[in-house]
Amino acid sequence: METDEAQKSVGCFDTPTLEDLEEMRKGKRVVACGGVFDIVHPGHAFVLDRAKDYGDLLVAIVARDSTVENRKRIPVIPEIQRREMVSQLKPVDIAVLGKEGSFLDIIEEIKPDVIALGPDQHHDSQKIEDELKKRGLNVEVARINEYKECPLHSTKDILLKIIERGYPK
Amino acid sequence: METDEAQKSVGCFDTPTLEDLEEMRKGKRVVACGGVFDIVHPGHAFVLDRAKDYGDLLVAIVARDSTVENRKRIPVIPEIQRREMVSQLKPVDIAVLGKEGSFLDIIEEIKPDVIALGPDQHHDSQKIEDELKKRGLNVEVARINEYKECPLHSTKDILLKIIERGYPK
Repeated sequence: METDEAQKSVGCFDTPTLEDLEEMRKGKRVVACGGVFDIVHPGHAFVLDRAKDYGDLLVAIVARDSTVENRKRIPVIPEIQRREMVSQLKPVDIAVLGKEGSFLDIIEEIKPDVIALGPDQHHDSQKIEDELKKRGLNVEVARINEYKECPLHSTKDILLKIIERGYPK
Repeated sequence: METDEAQKSVGCFDTPTLEDLEEMRKGKRVVACGGVFDIVHPGHAFVLDRAKDYGDLLVAIVARDSTVENRKRIPVIPEIQRREMVSQLKPVDIAVLGKEGSFLDIIEEIKPDVIALGPDQHHDSQKIEDELKKRGLNVEVARINEYKECPLHSTKDILLKIIERGYPK
């Protein structure tokens, strides 16, 4: 039960999990939106807020440490803490960790009505819809094009500033 | 109007300000809780959540850059971004920047029913209550003693891990 173990809390909150989704989703349109959410900033909350506009219930998918390591870098914050942090953002109803294989594996468990892709997630919407159809799922893939600039609007910029400055200067 | 200028948004959200508090507070018990909130983690959300238990409406006070610099270190995230990030945490109804002088100055504007001090905020509760009485305010000062450990449960630990590792390793 790798997933159940991974979904555990760092202990600050007893947050809903995918097991609670069936009860919560009744009659509601479920949106899924994914990301790494390493050092959270208002841009993350903004994208999640826009994602929620596509439905009633927002499931945030937090990328696994191993997935991030294979794609860009080792996350600073461990996955269970990233999941719990995201669960505390206003638009988020459920925050879950992704699975270690394909992004579509966790989508198959969530069975959302819509996947909302952020402005910097360069996936091919049609391809995702087609792949999910093969798995028997009819999911709309929407794209959030609006983008907001913050003074430090990416985890990368935040990390670079910290490294550049050193600590405790 | 230094305060109005400082309370402006980084542009992701149009969040309520102190000007909205009068309308929002009607018949409600207002709690104020302060912090730096430089790199937010679940421990911050936990303390804010416990703070809200003392009332109905939670005003989070985000310390000014200048105040933090005088006390511990230069914040990584600029004050307007820290304020906006905190405004997106579930327990928070209003997030405001503090004032540059005494902590009590912003309390005098908020006029909370309760101030909730976090487990690591070593202020003398009785002294705060007495000082506020002199300013004509009858405020209860409560202390949150419960403390939750996260894998990286302080901004300091997060910064040290980033510095130690370097980027993009």
